[in-house]
Amino acid sequence: MAESLKGNAVVGQSGGPTGVINASLVGVIEEVRKHPEIETLYGAVHAVAGMVKDDFIDLGKIDAATLETVAASPSSALGSSRDKPDADYCRKIIEVFKERNVRYFFYIGGNDSANTAHILNTVADETNYNIRAFHVPKTVDNDLLVTDHCPGYGTAAKFVAQALMGDDLDNRALPGVKIDVLMGRHAGFLTAAAALGKQRDDDGPHLIYVPERPVSMDKFLADVEAAYKKYNRCVIAVSEGMCDHDHKTWAEKLAENEERDAHGNIQLSGTGALADFLAGQIKGKLKIKRVRADTFGYLQRSYAGLQSKVDVDEARRCGRQAVKYAMEFDSGSVAIKRTGDGAAYAAELFRTELKNVAEKTKSMPDEFINADGNGVTDAYVQYAMPLVGGLPKTEYLGTYPKV
Amino acid sequence: MAESLKGNAVVGQSGGPTGVINASLVGVIEEVRKHPEIETLYGAVHAVAGMVKDDFIDLGKIDAATLETVAASPSSALGSSRDKPDADYCRKIIEVFKERNVRYFFYIGGNDSANTAHILNTVADETNYNIRAFHVPKTVDNDLLVTDHCPGYGTAAKFVAQALMGDDLDNRALPGVKIDVLMGRHAGFLTAAAALGKQRDDDGPHLIYVPERPVSMDKFLADVEAAYKKYNRCVIAVSEGMCDHDHKTWAEKLAENEERDAHGNIQLSGTGALADFLAGQIKGKLKIKRVRADTFGYLQRSYAGLQSKVDVDEARRCGRQAVKYAMEFDSGSVAIKRTGDGAAYAAELFRTELKNVAEKTKSMPDEFINADGNGVTDAYVQYAMPLVGGLPKTEYLGTYPKV
Repeated sequence: MAESLKGNAVVGQSGGPTGVINASLVGVIEEVRKHPEIETLYGAVHAVAGMVKDDFIDLGKIDAATLETVAASPSSALGSSRDKPDADYCRKIIEVFKERNVRYFFYIGGNDSANTAHILNTVADETNYNIRAFHVPKTVDNDLLVTDHCPGYGTAAKFVAQALMGDDLDNRALPGVKIDVLMGRHAGFLTAAAALGKQRDDDGPHLIYVPERPVSMDKFLADVEAAYKKYNRCVIAVSEGMCDHDHKTWAEKLAENEERDAHGNIQLSGTGALADFLAGQIKGKLKIKRVRADTFGYLQRSYAGLQSKVDVDEARRCGRQAVKYAMEFDSGSVAIKRTGDGAAYAAELFRTELKNVAEKTKSMPDEFINADGNGVTDAYVQYAMPLVGGLPKTEYLGTYPKV
Repeated sequence: MAESLKGNAVVGQSGGPTGVINASLVGVIEEVRKHPEIETLYGAVHAVAGMVKDDFIDLGKIDAATLETVAASPSSALGSSRDKPDADYCRKIIEVFKERNVRYFFYIGGNDSANTAHILNTVADETNYNIRAFHVPKTVDNDLLVTDHCPGYGTAAKFVAQALMGDDLDNRALPGVKIDVLMGRHAGFLTAAAALGKQRDDDGPHLIYVPERPVSMDKFLADVEAAYKKYNRCVIAVSEGMCDHDHKTWAEKLAENEERDAHGNIQLSGTGALADFLAGQIKGKLKIKRVRADTFGYLQRSYAGLQSKVDVDEARRCGRQAVKYAMEFDSGSVAIKRTGDGAAYAAELFRTELKNVAEKTKSMPDEFINADGNGVTDAYVQYAMPLVGGLPKTEYLGTYPKV
């Protein structure tokens, strides 16, 4: 256990926004107020990009009602950044931190953010500057190691599940093939959430494709043809990271636009090209007339007025817990352990080392994907269902017995 | 006033689904149960396409709890059709109706549905078959004549407003240009709803384009450049029906796929081509690096678990009212008259002739669009805001004063 450390703190939000990353921020803010060791809590505007430029706001002056509005707001209330700091970048941040006597660092983000906290902590150690660096997990992709699941996933999964419920009913009303392209570059968790709203045996999505299981275009088209024959319609959920057996994504093969972000990732979101390509394949090769394709895009991560209660509560707890851990430990990442399931769902938090979360990512385990590689299993549904915090019931009358 | 008429009734749902068309259906069902003149209420499966095939279910046997689930479910619970019946088609329907002694016809849909009801009524008259034909309005486009607004619009507008609220906060967090392509072939009402969630002076969308105001690509790019310069970011809402001064839509000019539906309409929804094209223009000609584009697609009309309370209540009232009118009149369409505004919003229903609603469509009035043709006015916001039944409050901290 570390000694008591007096000084100021910085909190930042990194990477892609989520529906509950602001709840984690509010968790940090409200817990800091309980600890006199921390005098001022600075909010870094646009994450590390703001830290190097000394761009901070004072989070001590925000009233409780505003904090509740922040916690309920999607996206990153402090602004975000896609910068991926190296040791030199972090040395500049440490210089700024020394000027402001910052001794606590809370960084809400994905695996890159855990890595940033790790580098920052290491660099500070080199100059004998004592700082406590903590990572608070968030992703819509649910791809962090160690933790059972990530804050942000449940809310994004709820958005996707409700979208597919509506879309499947729409497809019943006006039958045809409907393709929905969902977020998830390497991990299929968010695409898998398309299955969570299924209530009737013949509800869609009838096919779900995740990046963990490469599939050829021939196999894809054969699946669609079979499902269309069986149901006289077909709803398909496809991950934006869907790839062929050579592990190249379909989007990559298509992309004329080779724009990459600072992390070396190709841009998959914010374009309808994959969806339109797949629709064209189905129309052209299967001769099905009514084929529609939607790409859900950013709505999945930043939709206002829709949060999973379980998710938003856990996100806030993770923020609070990071501050509590910082009173005792030098560094760490907050992780979630599931302690109850189904209707008795419960979770507790624990600390893991930053290096356990940094840089690496998690994929869907095999037991969550069906043998055919075109759907999810009951094990997945049992895993994910408690995280969305309930889904509406729907009714379709068109399949009732004719009179 | 018409004499009392005993017999059975048929109800159907036509055209594109909405979030509350099932509430109108439930309104018809529950009101019919109060009127002994109507013995059996048949639900036509897939609208007129089911009527000619004699595909009906018995709506008298559905319990009250299931009806509430139906009313809360998006899409068309009876199934829909894009068929546009002519007199011959309607004569076949009348033959089926005679077999089943159907004397009441309730058709929930847009202007094409009002026209179908009108033709059906006329054809029945020709053969001296007494039938009462009523139209219950629904569209997400809000483009029906006579009525102040259409059931279905408020819920779709709520979805769009909350999407743009989240998207604008996302764009604040990771600045760039964001384009959202929204539904609305000829009427810009749904695209205009993008403005309803604006809470801060510099909130997006910063530019809104509706089909009522043709705009050249040069003007569009100049607008984007100016907004980007002013805000260091730019969120743009574009109707899928956006057109140039020659009144050809941008999508039409682009569309390689010339698929048209039975009404002669070109397919605009279900493709990301327009959004991707506009993003390419901005990247190429304005040299802005981070440009993203989403096409909202069918989520706008069939999202589960999200309804405007005002809208769903009015949709149900319209269904009930159609049945009440059918006890007194030969035919008609239910319309809404606004009798109070703002916090005192209220509406009452009235009957109009089918021919007043059939075939024609309404556009956004001039006073709802700004002089520059790239935004909406306060008059529009005052018109539309009561219909969405409230929007969440959000908070962004990144613009707070630096310390």
